[in-house]
Amino acid sequence: MAAEQDPEGRAAAQPLLTDLYQATMALGYWRAGRAWDPAEFELFFRRCPFGGAFALAAGLRDCVRFLRAFRLRDADVQFLASVLPPDTDPAFFEHLRGLDCSGVTVRALPEGSLAFPGVPLLQVSGPLLVVQLLETPLLCLVSYASLIATNAARLRLIAGPEKRLLEMGLRRAQGPNGGLTASTYSYLGGFDGSSNVLAGQLRGVPVAGTLAHSFVTSFSGTEVPPDPMLAPAAGQGPRVDLAACVEAWLERVCAHLGLGIQEPHPGERAAFVAYALAFPRAFQGLLDTYSVQRSGLPNFLAVALALGELGYRAVGVRLDSGDLLQQAREVRGRLRTTAAQFQVPWLELVPIAVSNNIDEEELARLAQEGSEVNLIGIGTSVVTCPRQPSLGCVYKLVSVGGQPRMKLTEDPEKQTLPGSKAAFRLLGSDGSLLLDLLQLAEETPPQAGQELRVWPRGAQESCTVRPSRVEPLLQLWVQEGQLCEPLPSLADSRAFAQLSLSRLSPAHKRLEQPEPYQVALSEKLQALVDRLGARGPQ
Amino acid sequence: MAAEQDPEGRAAAQPLLTDLYQATMALGYWRAGRAWDPAEFELFFRRCPFGGAFALAAGLRDCVRFLRAFRLRDADVQFLASVLPPDTDPAFFEHLRGLDCSGVTVRALPEGSLAFPGVPLLQVSGPLLVVQLLETPLLCLVSYASLIATNAARLRLIAGPEKRLLEMGLRRAQGPNGGLTASTYSYLGGFDGSSNVLAGQLRGVPVAGTLAHSFVTSFSGTEVPPDPMLAPAAGQGPRVDLAACVEAWLERVCAHLGLGIQEPHPGERAAFVAYALAFPRAFQGLLDTYSVQRSGLPNFLAVALALGELGYRAVGVRLDSGDLLQQAREVRGRLRTTAAQFQVPWLELVPIAVSNNIDEEELARLAQEGSEVNLIGIGTSVVTCPRQPSLGCVYKLVSVGGQPRMKLTEDPEKQTLPGSKAAFRLLGSDGSLLLDLLQLAEETPPQAGQELRVWPRGAQESCTVRPSRVEPLLQLWVQEGQLCEPLPSLADSRAFAQLSLSRLSPAHKRLEQPEPYQVALSEKLQALVDRLGARGPQ
Repeated sequence: MAAEQDPEGRAAAQPLLTDLYQATMALGYWRAGRAWDPAEFELFFRRCPFGGAFALAAGLRDCVRFLRAFRLRDADVQFLASVLPPDTDPAFFEHLRGLDCSGVTVRALPEGSLAFPGVPLLQVSGPLLVVQLLETPLLCLVSYASLIATNAARLRLIAGPEKRLLEMGLRRAQGPNGGLTASTYSYLGGFDGSSNVLAGQLRGVPVAGTLAHSFVTSFSGTEVPPDPMLAPAAGQGPRVDLAACVEAWLERVCAHLGLGIQEPHPGERAAFVAYALAFPRAFQGLLDTYSVQRSGLPNFLAVALALGELGYRAVGVRLDSGDLLQQAREVRGRLRTTAAQFQVPWLELVPIAVSNNIDEEELARLAQEGSEVNLIGIGTSVVTCPRQPSLGCVYKLVSVGGQPRMKLTEDPEKQTLPGSKAAFRLLGSDGSLLLDLLQLAEETPPQAGQELRVWPRGAQESCTVRPSRVEPLLQLWVQEGQLCEPLPSLADSRAFAQLSLSRLSPAHKRLEQPEPYQVALSEKLQALVDRLGARGPQ
Repeated sequence: MAAEQDPEGRAAAQPLLTDLYQATMALGYWRAGRAWDPAEFELFFRRCPFGGAFALAAGLRDCVRFLRAFRLRDADVQFLASVLPPDTDPAFFEHLRGLDCSGVTVRALPEGSLAFPGVPLLQVSGPLLVVQLLETPLLCLVSYASLIATNAARLRLIAGPEKRLLEMGLRRAQGPNGGLTASTYSYLGGFDGSSNVLAGQLRGVPVAGTLAHSFVTSFSGTEVPPDPMLAPAAGQGPRVDLAACVEAWLERVCAHLGLGIQEPHPGERAAFVAYALAFPRAFQGLLDTYSVQRSGLPNFLAVALALGELGYRAVGVRLDSGDLLQQAREVRGRLRTTAAQFQVPWLELVPIAVSNNIDEEELARLAQEGSEVNLIGIGTSVVTCPRQPSLGCVYKLVSVGGQPRMKLTEDPEKQTLPGSKAAFRLLGSDGSLLLDLLQLAEETPPQAGQELRVWPRGAQESCTVRPSRVEPLLQLWVQEGQLCEPLPSLADSRAFAQLSLSRLSPAHKRLEQPEPYQVALSEKLQALVDRLGARGPQ
């Protein structure tokens, strides 16, 4: 399988980005003559994150990229040799040198699908040794991606469809790649874009950003811009000294707002002028470096009105401290009266952006009816998922050589579901989701309109269900190392995620104490579980 | 500055791994003729993480690697051009193409230092445009590294010095690089090693690992090993059929434990034999795939005793579910009686390793007096820092052109400390830490034995202090782009972290409701804060 042309190179996930026990087990399998035994693993989670009743599947595009590039370099094999027993048969290392994923087949939920406990996000089959080695990197690539996509989807549900949500948590991520993953999959989960330039370059995520407080504080007001002249937006007419024009407007603005002309900070104004000269068509004011009402807002208005004279429209203001909802209301009020005073109607509608440690609760407040906030930047809360910073995906062996395998353990919740399986989503006549069904791969798929008996997980008794529609959940993406069809674009997966969520009932979609969504086993699968489980430690 | 020879390549942190507003501000500075203005930023945090009273500084080695390689490639500049205004002066992009860190100077706390609120972890000075661009990557590289080093240090304090702590959270990290960062800095913070092979290869972190449940469940017991023969440890004497030898021992073990010979799972035993054949000198049994007492333990004992006959000693057992403390006690009891029964004293002392969602509370339980646990594997809790998944470092402009700069904002906690500064740790005659002092760079350093007046942060009044020793905190690492001295090795930084912690008083080191450690300002710095603050928005 040829390595993909990939601007991220091998860096995204290298084969040695794995737990050492994968390598020790590889040697164990090899020594036991079982490297090529056909095996199947399932990657799934046991509980939905954040106390919710759903998750979004994500990370498949990174898994496919990883699988296609999977090759141990000489340096990798040498390092493994240095940590394995010195008398290890050299033939094992030859085996490792020749490894790739040309024997690996992957079925998976499309990215953006609704995912529920126990339903595989990925089914990975192939030679035992190699599919075992894939465990850690695949978990690493799927767990956090699905977690943050789900987190972003929750934040989108809270914000509603109208507010623009911008992810800006790179500085709070777990190192560089954590940031890239966060930006990519928060977009998939429903955000509008990111501040992360690399996510724009490598993943096509829409990027946005304007200025920080340091830009504002870097100006004292005594600087002399090398060229304060700006041409009108339409290109016609003489160039104007923007700084001088702003000073003239400042007097009128201060008079209107009842402020002394000395109150607005001259350095802040110089910073706004500098920014406006660089971005006349995209001027945004960051209002809270010194004082929103007495400095940031009048300075912004002076610059915006001066730009307006030249035919440019400011694109927004940003607040980054204090009571954001209340301040947005006050700022909107001032925008409104100033727009009326100077007869510039567009000024009233300038978007208000806010940021500053916004979590689910604060977001709900900012998204409430009557809020004047238009764009919400979220960093820490989306990237670190503080309410539950890991999803807990696992990757479990379900069959070897066609024989089902099951782990029992001391803890019933950690038992696995044996056997190679198929998964279906059953729908009612009104298109509502009834349940997800897991059954053995060899069973006939359920038929629309036909009643079938199933065992809801966790229930003591079976029940019957008659679906009006049946959708297979797991799609074949990689067959014997070959990509079967191109993956959807990130934007398409994002749209699919919103579509998937729209089909989920409000009771399951509720963020607090939702009704759990049912996952059920076919009678045959339940019988297999009972048989292997009852056998106890045999 | 030449790019370092670095096996991680450019991947660790690329220049475009940044917030877009750094690039828009760069254009703003450039357009205002200020790209080369000398500027200084400080990177610090405002509150210690996890409700504690200390943090460990970490991430400097990644920052230095990033700075030395910092260069925008043509593709990077082209991407920036695609998201900046189309009429941007091409000379700006030429400026970007020529950028490097040859004008950048970095002072920093050595890695593993104690760090407190407001004391800079990094001071970065150089041309305004480039040091602004560095903000996001440096925050990304320092914040999480310091957070996880601190988290690891807390876990080490709870575990005590004797228990071995292994980080194994790669699969729960925020993507590949999150995992690498976690493994590197949890080691720095006090762990003994990691399961992450890449951290071993690239960073020299000791790696460890044996086998997972999938290895055990992959065997049914019907497999025929291609070569079940094993030579004695000493190399002398005939090779022995290990599988047959194990079966013989199983009978004796079951008789001793009062178990039926059919109870231990034959597949689990086959897996143990396969592993022992591959790792006769490093055999560890994972006991809880089916049942610890009725299967895992007797199978382990049979294999360990068979190996013992050949002169090999098993290196451990692992438990991964259920009540770990209680099970460890039971397992130790069985090891003890079995050791006595068969007169193999070493068996009694086989290390017991445990894992399974271990958090601070569970760790305290496992580390209690009388615990039979020897090695503790921690994944999610160390990597995701669930108690506080981000540190909240900030990077603030403190001076431009030699003039101090200060942000006031709507929120007093977000005010910054202006001016280029020096930082000192003042110690008492008994070597105890008194406080950290921030003063202006031009002030004379405090002298041992001399009383000085300082303003503790947050206090309304000044106080006096007479240090017996004064230690400068910030070390010059990079001067005008040149590394001044080699960074300590990771292992040295790890030792330094433990030394630093040993000097902190128990009252500050306490993990719950500790006494805050004092950070104070010199009188001159306090006067500057008052002057710039009182000026309000002027």
